[in-house]
Amino acid sequence: MRCEIVAIGTELLLGQIVDTNSSWIGEQLALVGIDSHFQVKVGDNFDRMERTIRHALERSDAVICCGGLGPTQDDITREVIAAIMGVELHRDEAVVAKIRDMFESRGRVMVDNNRRQADIPEGASLIAQMPGTAPGLVCPIGDKVIYAVPGVPHEMRTMMDGTVLADLQRRSGETAVIRSRVLRTWGDSESGLAERLADRIDQLDGLGNPTLAFQASGMEGIKVRITAKAVHETAAAEIISAEETLLRGLLGDVIFGVDEESMETVVLNLLEARGLTLAIAEGMTGGVLSARLSEIDHGLTVFRGGAVRGEMEDGERPGADSAAAAAIGARRDFGTDVGLAVTAARAHDEQPPGTVFMNLAMGEAQYAQTVSLPGDRARFRNYAVINVLNFLRKTLMEQ
Amino acid sequence: MRCEIVAIGTELLLGQIVDTNSSWIGEQLALVGIDSHFQVKVGDNFDRMERTIRHALERSDAVICCGGLGPTQDDITREVIAAIMGVELHRDEAVVAKIRDMFESRGRVMVDNNRRQADIPEGASLIAQMPGTAPGLVCPIGDKVIYAVPGVPHEMRTMMDGTVLADLQRRSGETAVIRSRVLRTWGDSESGLAERLADRIDQLDGLGNPTLAFQASGMEGIKVRITAKAVHETAAAEIISAEETLLRGLLGDVIFGVDEESMETVVLNLLEARGLTLAIAEGMTGGVLSARLSEIDHGLTVFRGGAVRGEMEDGERPGADSAAAAAIGARRDFGTDVGLAVTAARAHDEQPPGTVFMNLAMGEAQYAQTVSLPGDRARFRNYAVINVLNFLRKTLMEQ
Repeated sequence: MRCEIVAIGTELLLGQIVDTNSSWIGEQLALVGIDSHFQVKVGDNFDRMERTIRHALERSDAVICCGGLGPTQDDITREVIAAIMGVELHRDEAVVAKIRDMFESRGRVMVDNNRRQADIPEGASLIAQMPGTAPGLVCPIGDKVIYAVPGVPHEMRTMMDGTVLADLQRRSGETAVIRSRVLRTWGDSESGLAERLADRIDQLDGLGNPTLAFQASGMEGIKVRITAKAVHETAAAEIISAEETLLRGLLGDVIFGVDEESMETVVLNLLEARGLTLAIAEGMTGGVLSARLSEIDHGLTVFRGGAVRGEMEDGERPGADSAAAAAIGARRDFGTDVGLAVTAARAHDEQPPGTVFMNLAMGEAQYAQTVSLPGDRARFRNYAVINVLNFLRKTLMEQ
Repeated sequence: MRCEIVAIGTELLLGQIVDTNSSWIGEQLALVGIDSHFQVKVGDNFDRMERTIRHALERSDAVICCGGLGPTQDDITREVIAAIMGVELHRDEAVVAKIRDMFESRGRVMVDNNRRQADIPEGASLIAQMPGTAPGLVCPIGDKVIYAVPGVPHEMRTMMDGTVLADLQRRSGETAVIRSRVLRTWGDSESGLAERLADRIDQLDGLGNPTLAFQASGMEGIKVRITAKAVHETAAAEIISAEETLLRGLLGDVIFGVDEESMETVVLNLLEARGLTLAIAEGMTGGVLSARLSEIDHGLTVFRGGAVRGEMEDGERPGADSAAAAAIGARRDFGTDVGLAVTAARAHDEQPPGTVFMNLAMGEAQYAQTVSLPGDRARFRNYAVINVLNFLRKTLMEQ
């Protein structure tokens, strides 16, 4: 089963938008065992879109068209697919009503252009999920199929997860179950991890199942992906769990989480399990730490709040002492169990630039760590945040 | 003159790396007036690479192959291009020596695999710039041309800027200058903007120059791009400026910035021009507003700081009153001229969910606005932040 991805939009060719959609879809296809040999970007041009999709259909079994489903005159994916299917478009009044309802629920009026979004090629069916005003389409052509999904990433993902991937698997007749789990690490290099796992990787090369792959994820650490193939879900899960246990034995606490678990999720879970609340004081990270914690802890139930304050670094003794005072201050101001502070040396301080001071006030104790980080400013902020979260994680785990 | 981009690497198809190279190259091509109608990703497979590059040569005058020039066995771009040219590879010993010198200057030893990087198709010439161990190639095929550049972004960019773009322009015989400017808008839909500009768009369709294009940028609003073609730089700049003046007349203050200006840049500039400092109080935005402001205002000179506090929403009267008190409190706590607060109704409040209360304390006055926002939580936060920044922008502009 081969599936080609066609990303549609002149803005993609002009580099005004980076095509992250094809990458995401490519990753999902690989995870369910479907080959994707070609991925093409094409502009909003009828002739070139038609040639590209026809060419894709010749060499693949399925084509996912991403983009060109909007309300404007240059959104012509619907028309192109109808031409390839050799059918007419018909306007689905139920979809028109749905789009109108969406606008009204936002207190806005649907303009006439939006009606075009309800034009469906004869013989095509609607994708059940419709998170925006663009309906997705499943368009059969003989024993092949074209899917049309919007270019808006969250709309595309909702439709891929809800309909397209399952439909592709059903069509592929693949009965083997392919599952994977990602072990997320922080604190060792890719070559360092490879050395620690060298013997196990050799063994698995002989066995063929499961497989391991490393994936550097920049500021989010290095991912170790376990992929297993089995006759059913339970067997795949067992293979993965056994491998995870083995790898945890080899890698220890550089593994901080699994799959989509971020460092902040792990830290918030650790705090919650211990019945602790947290407040923070941020200097040069400027709210990034707060934003990441509150992204997970919506209700601010464990992470109770924080302050961003440049003056923390303007005290008489910037550095370890001011971080210690700020951690105590945060705990007091927000009435929490734990106070955490992160600040950095200024260019004119005695410390080298890139020095980050972290302090944790918990119970009767205070824990301090100073690290020296590389990187330009944008990377420095995020690098400092992941370091301070890891500092909190390891300190909590040692209690 | 048409130039197609072929990005090479199985890791691109699998989504392990996002193909930002093609986007960057596409942008550079557009800026020098060269059309790029198709951009293709293909894996490290001889047959599929050959078919893809041959197909690209049929429909374009030039092909830029990006990637597959490394030292490992799956780096086969050199071999594929030689096959398409119908020539042999020869090893360029001067290049071998250059690669060896690079390794030695880094205190490392060149492994044998790296010699493969010095294999050049007969009739191809080397790109003068060579920032890494992979030489770039210019490979003429009749009156067409294939360029091969590495996938490492900074190496690719150095070769594009140093050789490829100038070579393409020379081949195209194009002397016209193409320039563009983006007007950034917030507060109207794409279809709404299209309706307001409908007459002007009709006029320009007749004139052909400049051209307008809309680009939805999600949470960052909708961009209106003006592109002008002229005989020289000054004439292009004049066409763009005249069009900008005309569009500003039609769209008014929904235009918040130009090109790379973000809403927070604009707001911080407005504050600075008025000699005002800012402090904020955030509820459900949880630090996102703070992180965005401090990302621009590194030194916290205009944006002095802020607090994230769940309790703001737990007062007796959550809503407009608590936002007003929080704006005053932020101004007092940080000793600034302006205090800004943003908070939201909770699910069990009398207000409908999605209601956001904004308040601005400035001088003797307080300004309040309440908006109702759609969206899931992640989008809701960012949507609230852009709304509160726009509220601050418009209030400052009205003073």
